[in-house]
Amino acid sequence: MMMSSKRYISKLLLSLILIFLLSIPITAIPSRSPSRFLGNFAKHHKTTDTINKTYRYDIRYFTQTLDHFSFSNLPTFQQRYLISTDHWLSGGGGGLNRFGPIFVYCGNEGDIEWFASNTGFLWEIASTFGALIVFPEHRYYGESMPYGSREKAYKNANSLSYLTAEQALADYAVFITDLKRNLSAEASPVVLFGGSYGGMLAAWMRLKYPHIAIGALASSAPILQFEDIVPTETFYDIVSNDFRRESLSCFDAIKKSWEEIEVEGKKENGLLQLTKKFHLCQSLNSTEDLSDWLDSAYSYLAMVDYPYPSSFLMPLPANPIKEVCRKIDSYPEGTSILERVFAGVSIYYNYTGTVDCFDLADDPHGMSGWDWQACTEMVMPMSSSRNNSMFPTYNFNYTSYQEQCVKEFGIKPRPRWITTEFGGHDMRTSLKMFGSNIIFSNGLLDPWSGGG
Amino acid sequence: MMMSSKRYISKLLLSLILIFLLSIPITAIPSRSPSRFLGNFAKHHKTTDTINKTYRYDIRYFTQTLDHFSFSNLPTFQQRYLISTDHWLSGGGGGLNRFGPIFVYCGNEGDIEWFASNTGFLWEIASTFGALIVFPEHRYYGESMPYGSREKAYKNANSLSYLTAEQALADYAVFITDLKRNLSAEASPVVLFGGSYGGMLAAWMRLKYPHIAIGALASSAPILQFEDIVPTETFYDIVSNDFRRESLSCFDAIKKSWEEIEVEGKKENGLLQLTKKFHLCQSLNSTEDLSDWLDSAYSYLAMVDYPYPSSFLMPLPANPIKEVCRKIDSYPEGTSILERVFAGVSIYYNYTGTVDCFDLADDPHGMSGWDWQACTEMVMPMSSSRNNSMFPTYNFNYTSYQEQCVKEFGIKPRPRWITTEFGGHDMRTSLKMFGSNIIFSNGLLDPWSGGG
Repeated sequence: MMMSSKRYISKLLLSLILIFLLSIPITAIPSRSPSRFLGNFAKHHKTTDTINKTYRYDIRYFTQTLDHFSFSNLPTFQQRYLISTDHWLSGGGGGLNRFGPIFVYCGNEGDIEWFASNTGFLWEIASTFGALIVFPEHRYYGESMPYGSREKAYKNANSLSYLTAEQALADYAVFITDLKRNLSAEASPVVLFGGSYGGMLAAWMRLKYPHIAIGALASSAPILQFEDIVPTETFYDIVSNDFRRESLSCFDAIKKSWEEIEVEGKKENGLLQLTKKFHLCQSLNSTEDLSDWLDSAYSYLAMVDYPYPSSFLMPLPANPIKEVCRKIDSYPEGTSILERVFAGVSIYYNYTGTVDCFDLADDPHGMSGWDWQACTEMVMPMSSSRNNSMFPTYNFNYTSYQEQCVKEFGIKPRPRWITTEFGGHDMRTSLKMFGSNIIFSNGLLDPWSGGG
Repeated sequence: MMMSSKRYISKLLLSLILIFLLSIPITAIPSRSPSRFLGNFAKHHKTTDTINKTYRYDIRYFTQTLDHFSFSNLPTFQQRYLISTDHWLSGGGGGLNRFGPIFVYCGNEGDIEWFASNTGFLWEIASTFGALIVFPEHRYYGESMPYGSREKAYKNANSLSYLTAEQALADYAVFITDLKRNLSAEASPVVLFGGSYGGMLAAWMRLKYPHIAIGALASSAPILQFEDIVPTETFYDIVSNDFRRESLSCFDAIKKSWEEIEVEGKKENGLLQLTKKFHLCQSLNSTEDLSDWLDSAYSYLAMVDYPYPSSFLMPLPANPIKEVCRKIDSYPEGTSILERVFAGVSIYYNYTGTVDCFDLADDPHGMSGWDWQACTEMVMPMSSSRNNSMFPTYNFNYTSYQEQCVKEFGIKPRPRWITTEFGGHDMRTSLKMFGSNIIFSNGLLDPWSGGG
């Protein structure tokens, strides 16, 4: 017998909560300055072997409107999406058949195949629910390029101007509506999934398009990391705590290393020495580039500190922070801090041991679009506190943040727009009254949990 | 003693329901073809004496973002708004003082002062609630012109492209957020008001920005008049019924008049004769222009068939349809139908008796922007049925609708966008689960009640 639609939806969501594991990858966006985002340093080698071939899907394209909210005569573009009807058409999940739900992963700032291969949870539960799976790609990432090519899409502020969260959500709304119509699946409930920025999109989509999706699983989604909603130190404090809880001496070594780098860099031939010491491919131009590189490693490690081996950002062992600290702590007394720190971050950047030299400007997943997003609407203020943080002390300064954006893109951010459009300051009330069926999952070690 | 915020909000909304009268003007948008909209023929004389000077307000301007959803370097524009703090600052409504609510009228397709002077209900209840009153003007109408002037804003599809409901809602969201911050009135609940298209905006705003407004009073808001949600004949059937209930002979005379006009127009010098018979200022080019003019009169009469004298669209007596039919029916047997019909519509177009000749192209309230909106997202299909309607039989034909838009603006409409963005097909569920505190008020004589 068919369950009633309402009971079915409740059961579906309850089940999602019950079987939810920590297996959704926790991607994230450090934003101490506009140049911080997920992509940089995330994976050193451009290999394709991380695309897990065990998940079967078709790759298709949808003709998408470039500007949903205005009506100039702009060209359309091809939005890529992955689709799997294996479980849906086979009628899994107790004969639900074509009334099975549609699981939509809200693509975030990268190649959609990368996210698809790292969202095992969604694939694992799809058969239980007899769900259709779709992974629409976020505009301006992967292959979903307006104007026909990445080069043209990223040409200037004009061509980039449609790279916004609202436009991406509208893409998903139009895509899902069209897909359901084409499949005569109007009765199938839609459940949204997403991690990090994709999790923000999933939560916001449920708030803004409740007629399209019945619920969302927003994993590690820092929708409160805007303006003054959470303390700006939250992110780096959590990263630092993740290291301190493994080892205080490890925390201390990292905390001291920044000054060592400064001192070393100021010596004659200091930058060259640092280049050699850290096995960099290109000569260092400033100590800041090196500090950024190290900062990124620690931040990303905190985001993917899974208790099992993973290769989402980089090939990593289980509990990678424990491994990093074990390395740092394993040196005999008197070993230079920089040597120890280098050995530590090598766990992150070179766990496979195949890297000859490190390239600080590497962006394997094509995510530099985040720079643009951080310089327009995604202004997430971050500071590093003197006491709790192992990072260099840093106070968020909006003026210099804005200056950097004007310099890079010729554009001023709108730092208050996101909370105006999506809310945030009194989120508890909004969610209670309207945003039902949104599961915000946050691992407490995850630095984004503070804003999530 | 202060009421708790929650109890206060409930009381406020309950009171709004209880004292709600039919006094909110019911503006509307006939859309049998893209050239149908509120403004045309709505008021013949360009006089200022209808601006009711009994409502006191200040006129101010807010620097507004032209494109909220994209980030190209566009110029800002000055959005006009009317504000009255008389009741708010004087602490009316039981000492609520600066925690009194903020009443926001969502400006629609015309000069905001016109709407302000015709929304007596809002002004009347403001003192009871100790409410701040604001009337932000809709972009591209009245004085709120992007690019500095109406001429430049209406130049072409490019300059018009930001004239959309979503952009207007974002204007209101940014404006309200900024206003509350500047007045340190973050705690003041916002209640939205609006009639017709403005009512649609109020309802949609409550759905899309629940963190900004606690409720909306959407008067005569046909948010279901899209795609196939309601039968396309609804609008003209209701108009026709409004006339039939007054007098069957009146209904019959009007129903026969269209053919008479056709026959007359085909005679030698027929168009000239019609021009004279209907006292038109310029010679008729086609009988269609005349039919449109008459059609508009009947449609608008149905929208403003108030039981008291009013001057919202035109200076009119109480129960104007009754008056129109009394005129049409008062002629002795044998009088030509066209003569009777002319006498009838003169109640609408010339109640004051001061008009020498009628100008079919008149647009006193500057609302031709609705043409653009109807040709982009506001595609509201309308037909006129053979049996129930007194209007010429007409079937909505999307192909020719689109052709006309391409011809006029070089742009194709997106007829499915509104329901994708705002919902509509399963509105009952959406409203039940998310759109709480929206009062949809519809007079049953109002032709928009079918889609509202």
